[in-house]
Amino acid sequence: MPAFDTALAVLDWLGLVVFAVTGALVASRKEMDIVGFALLGTATGIGGGTLRDMILDAPVFWAAQPIYLGTCLAVSILVFFTAHVPQSRYTLVLWFDAAGLALFAVAGAEKALGLGADPLVAVFLGVATATFGGILRDVVGAEPSIALRREIYVTAAVLAAGAYVVLAHAGVPREIAIPAGIAAGFGLRGAALRFGWALPRYRSRPGRSPDEIGR
Amino acid sequence: MPAFDTALAVLDWLGLVVFAVTGALVASRKEMDIVGFALLGTATGIGGGTLRDMILDAPVFWAAQPIYLGTCLAVSILVFFTAHVPQSRYTLVLWFDAAGLALFAVAGAEKALGLGADPLVAVFLGVATATFGGILRDVVGAEPSIALRREIYVTAAVLAAGAYVVLAHAGVPREIAIPAGIAAGFGLRGAALRFGWALPRYRSRPGRSPDEIGR
Amino acid sequence: MPAFDTALAVLDWLGLVVFAVTGALVASRKEMDIVGFALLGTATGIGGGTLRDMILDAPVFWAAQPIYLGTCLAVSILVFFTAHVPQSRYTLVLWFDAAGLALFAVAGAEKALGLGADPLVAVFLGVATATFGGILRDVVGAEPSIALRREIYVTAAVLAAGAYVVLAHAGVPREIAIPAGIAAGFGLRGAALRFGWALPRYRSRPGRSPDEIGR
Repeated sequence: MPAFDTALAVLDWLGLVVFAVTGALVASRKEMDIVGFALLGTATGIGGGTLRDMILDAPVFWAAQPIYLGTCLAVSILVFFTAHVPQSRYTLVLWFDAAGLALFAVAGAEKALGLGADPLVAVFLGVATATFGGILRDVVGAEPSIALRREIYVTAAVLAAGAYVVLAHAGVPREIAIPAGIAAGFGLRGAALRFGWALPRYRSRPGRSPDEIGR
Repeated sequence: MPAFDTALAVLDWLGLVVFAVTGALVASRKEMDIVGFALLGTATGIGGGTLRDMILDAPVFWAAQPIYLGTCLAVSILVFFTAHVPQSRYTLVLWFDAAGLALFAVAGAEKALGLGADPLVAVFLGVATATFGGILRDVVGAEPSIALRREIYVTAAVLAAGAYVVLAHAGVPREIAIPAGIAAGFGLRGAALRFGWALPRYRSRPGRSPDEIGR
Repeated sequence: MPAFDTALAVLDWLGLVVFAVTGALVASRKEMDIVGFALLGTATGIGGGTLRDMILDAPVFWAAQPIYLGTCLAVSILVFFTAHVPQSRYTLVLWFDAAGLALFAVAGAEKALGLGADPLVAVFLGVATATFGGILRDVVGAEPSIALRREIYVTAAVLAAGAYVVLAHAGVPREIAIPAGIAAGFGLRGAALRFGWALPRYRSRPGRSPDEIGR
């Protein structure tokens, strides 16, 4: 299949599958109809890569390849008929989101490097690709944003993209650097989910509501 | 006027007018000032087509044609001085939004087909064009998202774009396929508004709040 | 430094610094970790210019220049260690946001004019550039949107961009038109903050919640 002749295409496809699952699961939590599942699953699946490609001024990855949209539709419909099976759908959202986060962080950094971006820019684009789909899902589905959760989240995307970029710059072959980046990011996020790992947070005092503050 | 030498330009302009009205009416519900009307009317009017053009990597439709922005400004100012007339401004929002939904769904699909997109991609871009302006309006105006309402909404955009793409592929001339798609979408959304039509919703159990779920 | 060989590059950089401060201060109000500071500071700093460049189909200003991202990171980390100093962080957010608003309004209009845009389009792009970063910051950080505050806000961006475009079209040299536009916008927004200036608001009756309205 011509869509899958590069490692990047496979990463995009895998990340899209797991993110589409999380979007459709949020649709099930909100009791949407099947078209709502399809729209939220698709938006979550393609959101991060779409932002990445628009920033890089590259053709948007799914616009010429109906397989990506078709996958999102198939996944969303499958979830519509099976979402009652798992005990806790929100826990599933968290774990699939963790996999998508690691996959898209590396995919974003890899595409940016391939187009000649500076390493710092590549890491940032990886993080943006990895986090945007989930932010979009949570805004549209009116869930509390996953990016604001207490335990490590964005940091895992930074680790995945950063590890890949460092290894790729050190000359490590792609077949090793890509899985290493994904494993590092998924491992860190998984540990954060499992053990509640968190970085120290800013703790001077919380913000007051704007109305409490005299000008 | 060179801006209007294609059916697509007319669709974009009509969709923009009705969506700008809905944006300005939301501004009136939130008691904004006249500049707030102009910004929310304009963002709602141009939002969907802007997303479409950025994804297709086509020049953004209003960037070279001041008539589109001028129309949004004129519409917003008109609404500022007349919004007290209708009995229920929210009902007007719903009906103008229904017209814009059908117009932009066909406009998005038509532009995508014209640039050589796959039919599935064209339908999806039609739906994205049709729904994005309203989602943007509701986020910025802090209204409950119209896309999450119980009765049929996104489905009407799917029908409008899908009917147009099927007819166009079957060789039906554009002068028939375009109004047919618009009529199908507006008819379905109008019936949903009038009679409360809805698709069956996912009903296993609603989602719990993330805080209720132990990891 | 090649990034700074144009007035526009300097405006982008200054606007980015002050907006990054506001993003990081919102992160401190929400007690995020240091990576959260970096992400919210960066998104706020680059958000407006990114939207502008994508609409103009110009290369995104920071994608080829790591200095912009590096600045956002440095600013965010600095705020992480110093945010406890100011009496009221929200007041600081408002004043830095006012400076960024004026800087980005002129930067957006100037870039659009330089690419041959119509004056009305240039003013609108200036306003979009100036307001988008703050809207993004408030959505992601779950603050009440600054664009919905009672006193003059968007109007100041319109004044800054409009004054610059009028002066530039009148043949006034750029070294005068740019500071004049910035001063007008910052002056108006500052006066609005200091004295509570507001335009008359639409006051027929507020909107009812959608649930109160029978169809």
